[in-house]
Amino acid sequence: MALLVEKTTNGREYKVKDMSQADFGRLEIELAEVEMPGLMSCRTEFGPSQPFKGARITGSLHMTIQTAVLIETLTALGAEVRWCSCNIFSTQDHAAAAIARDSAAVFAWKGETLQEYWWCTERALDWGPGGGPDLIVDDGGDATLLIHEGVKAEEVYEKTGVLPDPASTDNAEFQIVLTIIRDGLKTDPKRYHKMKERLVGVSEETTTGVKRLYQMQANGTLLFPAINVNDSVTKSKFDNLYGCRHSLPDGLMRATDVMIAGKVAVVCGYGDVGKGCAAAMKQAGARVVVTEIDPICALQALMEGLQVLTLEDVVSEADIFVTTTGNKDIIMVDHMRKMKNNAIVCNIGHFDNEIDMLGLENFPGVKRITIKPQTDRWVFPDTKSGIIVLAEGRLMNLGCATGHPSFVMSCSFTNQVIAQLELWNEKASGKYEKKVYVLPKHLDEKVAALHLGKLGAKLTKLSKEQADYISVPIEGPYKPAPYRY
Amino acid sequence: MALLVEKTTNGREYKVKDMSQADFGRLEIELAEVEMPGLMSCRTEFGPSQPFKGARITGSLHMTIQTAVLIETLTALGAEVRWCSCNIFSTQDHAAAAIARDSAAVFAWKGETLQEYWWCTERALDWGPGGGPDLIVDDGGDATLLIHEGVKAEEVYEKTGVLPDPASTDNAEFQIVLTIIRDGLKTDPKRYHKMKERLVGVSEETTTGVKRLYQMQANGTLLFPAINVNDSVTKSKFDNLYGCRHSLPDGLMRATDVMIAGKVAVVCGYGDVGKGCAAAMKQAGARVVVTEIDPICALQALMEGLQVLTLEDVVSEADIFVTTTGNKDIIMVDHMRKMKNNAIVCNIGHFDNEIDMLGLENFPGVKRITIKPQTDRWVFPDTKSGIIVLAEGRLMNLGCATGHPSFVMSCSFTNQVIAQLELWNEKASGKYEKKVYVLPKHLDEKVAALHLGKLGAKLTKLSKEQADYISVPIEGPYKPAPYRY
Amino acid sequence: MALLVEKTTNGREYKVKDMSQADFGRLEIELAEVEMPGLMSCRTEFGPSQPFKGARITGSLHMTIQTAVLIETLTALGAEVRWCSCNIFSTQDHAAAAIARDSAAVFAWKGETLQEYWWCTERALDWGPGGGPDLIVDDGGDATLLIHEGVKAEEVYEKTGVLPDPASTDNAEFQIVLTIIRDGLKTDPKRYHKMKERLVGVSEETTTGVKRLYQMQANGTLLFPAINVNDSVTKSKFDNLYGCRHSLPDGLMRATDVMIAGKVAVVCGYGDVGKGCAAAMKQAGARVVVTEIDPICALQALMEGLQVLTLEDVVSEADIFVTTTGNKDIIMVDHMRKMKNNAIVCNIGHFDNEIDMLGLENFPGVKRITIKPQTDRWVFPDTKSGIIVLAEGRLMNLGCATGHPSFVMSCSFTNQVIAQLELWNEKASGKYEKKVYVLPKHLDEKVAALHLGKLGAKLTKLSKEQADYISVPIEGPYKPAPYRY
Amino acid sequence: MALLVEKTTNGREYKVKDMSQADFGRLEIELAEVEMPGLMSCRTEFGPSQPFKGARITGSLHMTIQTAVLIETLTALGAEVRWCSCNIFSTQDHAAAAIARDSAAVFAWKGETLQEYWWCTERALDWGPGGGPDLIVDDGGDATLLIHEGVKAEEVYEKTGVLPDPASTDNAEFQIVLTIIRDGLKTDPKRYHKMKERLVGVSEETTTGVKRLYQMQANGTLLFPAINVNDSVTKSKFDNLYGCRHSLPDGLMRATDVMIAGKVAVVCGYGDVGKGCAAAMKQAGARVVVTEIDPICALQALMEGLQVLTLEDVVSEADIFVTTTGNKDIIMVDHMRKMKNNAIVCNIGHFDNEIDMLGLENFPGVKRITIKPQTDRWVFPDTKSGIIVLAEGRLMNLGCATGHPSFVMSCSFTNQVIAQLELWNEKASGKYEKKVYVLPKHLDEKVAALHLGKLGAKLTKLSKEQADYISVPIEGPYKPAPYRY
Repeated sequence: MALLVEKTTNGREYKVKDMSQADFGRLEIELAEVEMPGLMSCRTEFGPSQPFKGARITGSLHMTIQTAVLIETLTALGAEVRWCSCNIFSTQDHAAAAIARDSAAVFAWKGETLQEYWWCTERALDWGPGGGPDLIVDDGGDATLLIHEGVKAEEVYEKTGVLPDPASTDNAEFQIVLTIIRDGLKTDPKRYHKMKERLVGVSEETTTGVKRLYQMQANGTLLFPAINVNDSVTKSKFDNLYGCRHSLPDGLMRATDVMIAGKVAVVCGYGDVGKGCAAAMKQAGARVVVTEIDPICALQALMEGLQVLTLEDVVSEADIFVTTTGNKDIIMVDHMRKMKNNAIVCNIGHFDNEIDMLGLENFPGVKRITIKPQTDRWVFPDTKSGIIVLAEGRLMNLGCATGHPSFVMSCSFTNQVIAQLELWNEKASGKYEKKVYVLPKHLDEKVAALHLGKLGAKLTKLSKEQADYISVPIEGPYKPAPYRY
Repeated sequence: MALLVEKTTNGREYKVKDMSQADFGRLEIELAEVEMPGLMSCRTEFGPSQPFKGARITGSLHMTIQTAVLIETLTALGAEVRWCSCNIFSTQDHAAAAIARDSAAVFAWKGETLQEYWWCTERALDWGPGGGPDLIVDDGGDATLLIHEGVKAEEVYEKTGVLPDPASTDNAEFQIVLTIIRDGLKTDPKRYHKMKERLVGVSEETTTGVKRLYQMQANGTLLFPAINVNDSVTKSKFDNLYGCRHSLPDGLMRATDVMIAGKVAVVCGYGDVGKGCAAAMKQAGARVVVTEIDPICALQALMEGLQVLTLEDVVSEADIFVTTTGNKDIIMVDHMRKMKNNAIVCNIGHFDNEIDMLGLENFPGVKRITIKPQTDRWVFPDTKSGIIVLAEGRLMNLGCATGHPSFVMSCSFTNQVIAQLELWNEKASGKYEKKVYVLPKHLDEKVAALHLGKLGAKLTKLSKEQADYISVPIEGPYKPAPYRY
Repeated sequence: MALLVEKTTNGREYKVKDMSQADFGRLEIELAEVEMPGLMSCRTEFGPSQPFKGARITGSLHMTIQTAVLIETLTALGAEVRWCSCNIFSTQDHAAAAIARDSAAVFAWKGETLQEYWWCTERALDWGPGGGPDLIVDDGGDATLLIHEGVKAEEVYEKTGVLPDPASTDNAEFQIVLTIIRDGLKTDPKRYHKMKERLVGVSEETTTGVKRLYQMQANGTLLFPAINVNDSVTKSKFDNLYGCRHSLPDGLMRATDVMIAGKVAVVCGYGDVGKGCAAAMKQAGARVVVTEIDPICALQALMEGLQVLTLEDVVSEADIFVTTTGNKDIIMVDHMRKMKNNAIVCNIGHFDNEIDMLGLENFPGVKRITIKPQTDRWVFPDTKSGIIVLAEGRLMNLGCATGHPSFVMSCSFTNQVIAQLELWNEKASGKYEKKVYVLPKHLDEKVAALHLGKLGAKLTKLSKEQADYISVPIEGPYKPAPYRY
Repeated sequence: MALLVEKTTNGREYKVKDMSQADFGRLEIELAEVEMPGLMSCRTEFGPSQPFKGARITGSLHMTIQTAVLIETLTALGAEVRWCSCNIFSTQDHAAAAIARDSAAVFAWKGETLQEYWWCTERALDWGPGGGPDLIVDDGGDATLLIHEGVKAEEVYEKTGVLPDPASTDNAEFQIVLTIIRDGLKTDPKRYHKMKERLVGVSEETTTGVKRLYQMQANGTLLFPAINVNDSVTKSKFDNLYGCRHSLPDGLMRATDVMIAGKVAVVCGYGDVGKGCAAAMKQAGARVVVTEIDPICALQALMEGLQVLTLEDVVSEADIFVTTTGNKDIIMVDHMRKMKNNAIVCNIGHFDNEIDMLGLENFPGVKRITIKPQTDRWVFPDTKSGIIVLAEGRLMNLGCATGHPSFVMSCSFTNQVIAQLELWNEKASGKYEKKVYVLPKHLDEKVAALHLGKLGAKLTKLSKEQADYISVPIEGPYKPAPYRY
């Protein structure tokens, strides 16, 4: 795709695959709104006061139908928005088109190259000469990373006159990042510094991005406040768990049509995502084997009747392999060679380094047969046996299906809206330092409460005596901070 | 689509949507073969002796990837094959293309009109002047119906000279059937008699078709032997149950992306199909309400923790409605008007008369908004509230997803192959009269046995003493005929 | 226990463990009545007309609280009743006491010797000089067996003057049977012939007894009509399945307090009983391995995510072993020796020959440590490793817990009442020959219907058009005979 | 029972119900040891160094078989131990007898009066003139409470000469506490001060006791360090959840034999205990309704397919009611009057104030019928309808069954041993102030690790590169403190 920015009739920039899908996108956005009561409540509650008036928000988060409802909630509250996806396969092109046409500057399409991906990220951050966004919605931390790396390079350049050198790394993706920063430096050596100055803060969506933020906080290199949305209970214990429980079988079925019942499924990692995946596979009639490094999570798996083994123990017997660890080098090419013919290998963790795609691609004589987009059969030369890799090792639920369903994303994204409001409202108060924060429990409980009515639930009310007896306010919050749910 | 028969380079007739999808179809067929051990075993066991040498087989059965593997099993055993689909939405066009190009005469595409549907059926039965097929593989009984109606009309015509009159019925579909027969009569008044003469028998796939056959047997109007494949244990207790357990959520997710967890799902009917559907919804985290007429099935639902109510009791509270009854007039337009906004209404039974589509279409002021093919939102004028109807009330798992997965269809279709072999091998022996038969239990057990190895199972062997103790042969069959599994 | 018959103040015979438990038994009977709507409906519907007026009924069926409600339903309908248990461990002594005091002649206690067991059976059949019972309620067929063996012996004796010789068999239990018959012969050489003459028929409760009846029918040796209650859908698909799903974990927990979650449970046999057992273990968090001889049942297990292996494959890894096969020699002493320390071995099938108790008892140097009644630890001399055997290899749910719960037994026993009524009402009509019959479907459906209200269920009613469309009467029966549910 | 202390032959004090049950207790203790790998590992690891040499430990914790293994682990590590139960119904008399005979001073029996209960507690704390214990193992906090109230009363007495006045409260139980303190004061006005002085710390087992401790910490009234064992992941997410999932159905079945399948079960509260209870009821085939005050927990229930309503919504339809809230006044007598005949009402929370037993007992004309110990039917005079209350509203799993199974208690109790060791080893270091602490995560993970081998699990090992990538040590701990599991 030629990397040229286009403009809508009213002058808003965008770059999407096919603007003619905007009507389809709009219809699906309207369906999703009915399933996203938290976001719609935010529009009702906050819309009239336009709290984001004057705020520029950049988002780097899977450009799906659900995200479209998030974006239009932000704009309904007064914000101006630019957006890119945080994964090369996760954009839904009809969602991107509808938003680009109607609401915000979008730079995203399904099937970006890495080059295109970072171009989009850079476009989403570029608000013109006056600096970058006021706020960032990040997922995985790539927008945050680009600014941090940019500032770092600008500092080196200022001190030494040395430009970043893409050849200094053999990580192909980081070479692209450095190239972008280098090219930016040539036109404006303060580009990222200006961004940093303007930025009020970031709210981060996912485990992986949060981990990066805590590392920067620990190193003292974090440049602006961050709210960790991932660790809201209504995010990590819902989206990660119930979202994946829904979208793993969805992705498997759309990509391969394989019968799950009767199969042996290996779930690598038994955190929230792994728990959702294992539950989904068990419920669909598979026999599930879990691999874990953490004895507590392993014991939880056992209590659910799952077998806990190492990958080596089951690699040649299992039919479906899913990585959920957030770690790297989980399924290596040597594992893949030992698998049964047409074993399915996929990843549902944020980054694509859980599966050794590089090892697979470089295996001598290996042959790749693309069944359909995001579904490849790789055949090893010696055995003529093939394995099926989904979404090239990237997030299979977004690559092969449509990601998490609207209802659970409404929980996550309502946290995002609340986090963005919090950062913006407190921008002058000094409440938030250059640290990582989680939302207070009463807001977490509020997010949950906004989602009960849609499901017909009725809450019980504490009496004054009961509230006193357990030492909580009648209206909550009801649990101490470390409560695990 | 212009109803013109096309021909492959080697002269075989076909009519499919897009021959360029044949390569894609072939790749998916190859994947499916790995998942269909029963069919592949038939090729290994029977292929060398070419038992179907000289046999003409017509199939009227969803033209999917799985059916493609069935067709190529029949041709691998020596048969010549012509095929059509038994549902206007169920054809997978890449499967049809691959088979049309490589193996058999196919007349099928996704999204046929009823006119086109019956044209395809008639094409599949037309083997030229020498009469029709030797064998029929039927699903729902439409091919069988056409021959029976044709013969009836020819008899009337012979006696009275009166041609069938499409205007004599107000059933739109039956008008088409009568038109086809009338037009055929004009060119050859013995067309269907010749078919009947040649026909060795039919093997019928599904509950609905089987019911028709038993009615004809009871009325004494059945024209040829029939094997009821549906009531093989390895069909009805597998395909109907586990197949739907897989394909109901698959269809819901592909059509609507709706989160199933937390929703109220109403499953109308708790037979094998209903059991599979209810299990799927429960496992996905829905709260399930069952409607039933049969107290035994109702009590089974209760024992699984499901609520049993009438549709009227829950129509305004539920989120998802699925019909599985095999009966008619289950969800009427008056029910639909009372549903929540964006309630999902779908059918997974064979025929499309479970949901009152006619009532819906004719409701004054109702508005149909097509979200995407097979997913329509219907908005009522008074309430502005909409419901979402899948696959226009037809089989939603085939209309919105890809039907049952290969592995379970391998069970069903291995029964089909065995039934066809049985009819053909006994064509001269008089073993089969003009009645409906089920396969003997030892063949049913054989079908199951062929599917165990793929799943890593190991059977226990009876000792002689044990076999004697329970009075069965060591090699089976192990159960008396009425055993319910 | 001294085998002396006692008498109540009003002269009814009995032999129970402890009459002082009658009040406790009565309280539990009253609780059970609330849970047994089918039986209570029979009292309401048939009680006023006293259909069993003049009928003598002998029952040989676990003398539990639930059976007490059955017995008092029979007496409420006018019958006179004598009862024994059909298993040496299954009597609940408080139930026996309450019935003995209030309603019927009971000969049963928990922990009978085999000698005592057959004495009780013989007492229950002994209605005095005028012959035996008019009707038998049998479970496992021991009462039926005694009469058949008695008649056979009397015929031999009449022809040859030879008395049965207990020494002619090395089956210890059959020696006792022969002794009883021999002693009876000495006092009345026509004792069993008179019984046979009077007997209208038997209704048989369980798979094992039914199998015996069909064998006698096949051999032409069946002496009176029999109704196979076991194969009513509302019996075998409820009591066997849901009853065992309840009572297996109940028995395990009462006997051993073992945590089921996390353990490996092996279920031998995947019929109705095995399905219930496997479901219970899976739901409680165990990992379940099934052993099967029948490929169809094996494939069903696989579809539920269970592993199917041979006992040899898992004998040294599993924690809990349950036999459900109805066959013999399933778990042999050589298996037991290979088990983990404190592996639990139990049987839930009718007879005690599934587990090789004889082999265990006779194993050189083996040591038995009774933890508590029905819970024994057997220690092998070489390994010092022990296994825990429940209920001495007999029905563990009755030996270690209280058997199936009232609600599901109400289904089974309502079938019994209906079967007994049917035999008695048709005693003169010749409707029933010396064959085995199942109840017609409309009665089966009626039994289910009687149990819906208690669970708050509401049935849907067919319209006339719908009933016609599927060719069933509006009021049922709704399914063809071979329907499998 | 006469409240006289008895002595073993070697002079150790005790008061138990029946010393003749000691052998039976020993057998069950030996079985439990096999199921408690964590405790047995502690014996192996720490036994040789006798770390508790010289330590006096008082425990107030359900005197069950599992606790017996805990006690003997403490003594195996060198401690001297005195023990009482923390609930009047939870003692297993055979366990108490075995420990009293063999290992420690036990004051506990099943069915204590409140008077007896506090006498036992006081005995367990009484180590003679030299002061009280060095360490306390507490469950619910009653031992801790007695010392705190004692110290408070002594201070008042010292200042004012006023003795505590039992008549100053209308809480019957607290009257007893004050009486005991008053009587103690008369003999030794420094009794509890001496205890406080000697005490190194307490480790508290359960949510309720922990809540009390945090309140005392907040008020500044906590007299010694406390370790919160409850909030170890391997305690609250295992014992509370999986323990109750096991023991709720166990208690229901032993107490009532009721069929759970098909019933409507209301679980009040959806914390860890409620989650376990709801899962158990759902798995057993009940339809589950949850009541909750916390919207997050409510949304979790919905995601599992459970209905969330208020008690009022379902009180007249449900069959089984379980309270798990840790709050008071959950099921009031006015609720009970509206329930169905023979609805079952029980509590599995620590204290007996969740169910309004006082209101029930004082209801005019109500009649109590004791079916058997811990199972009472209460009949209301107007409706003649009864409800069944288990364990008089106290912990039903300990009152009606045997509490949690050994394996899961091994997790909890290994935490206890580690906590006691930590307090004792650090007694002089000043590491622990008068605050509440949780165990560090690496010890929590260690507890889990000790339980994997028994279940056949194999952990995966991180490589150095992987550990660095996710910034954890190779050997753990693997998760940040707030991780929720």
